Amino acid sequence: MRFFEDQIRKVTPYTPGEQPKMQDVIKLNTNENPYPPAPGVAEALNNMEADTLRLYPDPTASKLVGAIADYYHVEPSRVFVGVGSDDVIAMSFLTFFNSDKPILFPDISYSFYEVWADAFRIPYHKIPLTETFQIDPRDYNADCGGVIFPNPNAPTGVALAADQVEQIVRNNQNTVVIVDEAYIDFGGESVLSLTEKYENLLVVQTFSKSRQMAGMRIGFAIGSEKLIKYLSDMKYSFNSYTMNRPSIEAGAAAIADDGYFRGMCAKIISTREWAKKEFRKRGFEFADSKANFIFVRHKSAQARELFTKLRGKNIFVRYFDQPRIDNYLRVTVGTEEQMEKLFTALDEILAEQ
Amino acid sequence: MRFFEDQIRKVTPYTPGEQPKMQDVIKLNTNENPYPPAPGVAEALNNMEADTLRLYPDPTASKLVGAIADYYHVEPSRVFVGVGSDDVIAMSFLTFFNSDKPILFPDISYSFYEVWADAFRIPYHKIPLTETFQIDPRDYNADCGGVIFPNPNAPTGVALAADQVEQIVRNNQNTVVIVDEAYIDFGGESVLSLTEKYENLLVVQTFSKSRQMAGMRIGFAIGSEKLIKYLSDMKYSFNSYTMNRPSIEAGAAAIADDGYFRGMCAKIISTREWAKKEFRKRGFEFADSKANFIFVRHKSAQARELFTKLRGKNIFVRYFDQPRIDNYLRVTVGTEEQMEKLFTALDEILAEQ
Repeated sequence: MRFFEDQIRKVTPYTPGEQPKMQDVIKLNTNENPYPPAPGVAEALNNMEADTLRLYPDPTASKLVGAIADYYHVEPSRVFVGVGSDDVIAMSFLTFFNSDKPILFPDISYSFYEVWADAFRIPYHKIPLTETFQIDPRDYNADCGGVIFPNPNAPTGVALAADQVEQIVRNNQNTVVIVDEAYIDFGGESVLSLTEKYENLLVVQTFSKSRQMAGMRIGFAIGSEKLIKYLSDMKYSFNSYTMNRPSIEAGAAAIADDGYFRGMCAKIISTREWAKKEFRKRGFEFADSKANFIFVRHKSAQARELFTKLRGKNIFVRYFDQPRIDNYLRVTVGTEEQMEKLFTALDEILAEQ
Repeated sequence: MRFFEDQIRKVTPYTPGEQPKMQDVIKLNTNENPYPPAPGVAEALNNMEADTLRLYPDPTASKLVGAIADYYHVEPSRVFVGVGSDDVIAMSFLTFFNSDKPILFPDISYSFYEVWADAFRIPYHKIPLTETFQIDPRDYNADCGGVIFPNPNAPTGVALAADQVEQIVRNNQNTVVIVDEAYIDFGGESVLSLTEKYENLLVVQTFSKSRQMAGMRIGFAIGSEKLIKYLSDMKYSFNSYTMNRPSIEAGAAAIADDGYFRGMCAKIISTREWAKKEFRKRGFEFADSKANFIFVRHKSAQARELFTKLRGKNIFVRYFDQPRIDNYLRVTVGTEEQMEKLFTALDEILAEQ
């Protein structure tokens, strides 16, 4: 190793879900939305004049921030936007989790939390979920450097009721509590409105799932004016212009079409509920999901084997080789047609067992 | 102050140049390119299917990385892309400047370096430019935690010859040396080819200036495979999907049109050289610029006053209220027509003195 390497900050990077480049795969592995973005998005992109790209974007992304603020009935000064919720949460870790005390998050959760904590040298303590994959709010009453958890949780899909989330926020008013609501629009109870009551609460959401725009990289946070100000200061210290012109235009267009948004969420919820029955019929077990995925375990077939055999049939689901969940598959809710193909494939695979 | 605020990481954010929202201003304040992106960029954006936005982008941005690698004749494994060169450099600070020894950069330079160092708690030492605003390579022979400087330097526009850059790289082989070549395409000597010889050299460039795409946020670094691997690990620890689909498509289209790129750079260089004469005629002094801006001081008129009066005429230039340079204006090279309007305005203002 060369000497200059000694001082390099080394990290174990997060491994994103596979993005297969072949056509004709059924992609149920990264929780994308199976439906296209709202029609206004295509229009916004087609109407963009490429000439304007020579100019920097608005560093405050005010068109997008304003659209989000209007939609959620909050002041624009309480909205922060970033390059996907990963960017928003990474900035939040850097800004808010700056104590010597450990931050707390569930042991089974979004695996990026651990990666960020490691990268930024933030001490952390993982709180085990209960046997049934529940977050128990009483486990989060510790003297800590901050709290973060997804609601609904990933990859379990299990949702925490708003009053239980509030219990965690209320018991940790000396630190910042981040509720990662990436999947909230598929049936969970959002605590957005609690950001008026608790200055230490930051709620993060994303356009990647319920707004069909994973490819555009838009995430946002809503919190007290105070938290958003600190977060913006950090963002402006990092990169003044994070949101490019297409993302500002397309993001604003996406949020403008509430009917489309609600309709598509309802469709996914309905497919999910039907899929739960189909999974159950075939001997799968799962905690109840309020997300756009279901985290399933078969009563006899091994998850890893199912994963590999599905992949052989060009159906991609997600498998985590981790303690406690290494016999589970996380299956994104696709279109009904995609799910039917999945169940046909599972029938074939299970028949061979 | 509430208790949770104690542990928040507080920073003094960078103040970006104004982005006036009015029409009909002459914007010579943020070093944007006055010409539109290559025609292929509009085509790439118009041909994008909005439906694909529902899917995550390729996390490796391989289409864009491949286009850059081809263009500069390097292996794709030696190319890193980010959301503007600010993102690339911020990630580089976090990754490479991880020592207790101070990093070195010029006292008059891109003001973000200091902001990143502060935000990431990296010790630094600012090396004064010479009286004539030159970087003296001998000043960088210290036991340090890393080196960064722009070439040409900003906001001075002064370029360092490749052999002098090499001297700095050679004398600091125990640390990483970052050469920020944001403005290199306007006449400086790039040290890209030295990345084959020096494993500790990282060269950063951007699509924001010479490739007319400030609004798309694309920057890149080329270095040894080793450096790029460490940088990518950090990036994947921060945000797996930084480049959105439009930026990958438009970026690849921009770099494909070499004729357009060269033609537009030549046009700006020619306007700059003519503008130098015009400035000189009017009593302005400046170090020779190899960038798309000129850093000027008038022999009698005060910079701050000129700045304000130009602004009153809807002409925006950049003024820095900082020691050593508070009587200078940084003027971006616009179209000939814009520069003619600038000179007419300056004539009016100077006649009133």
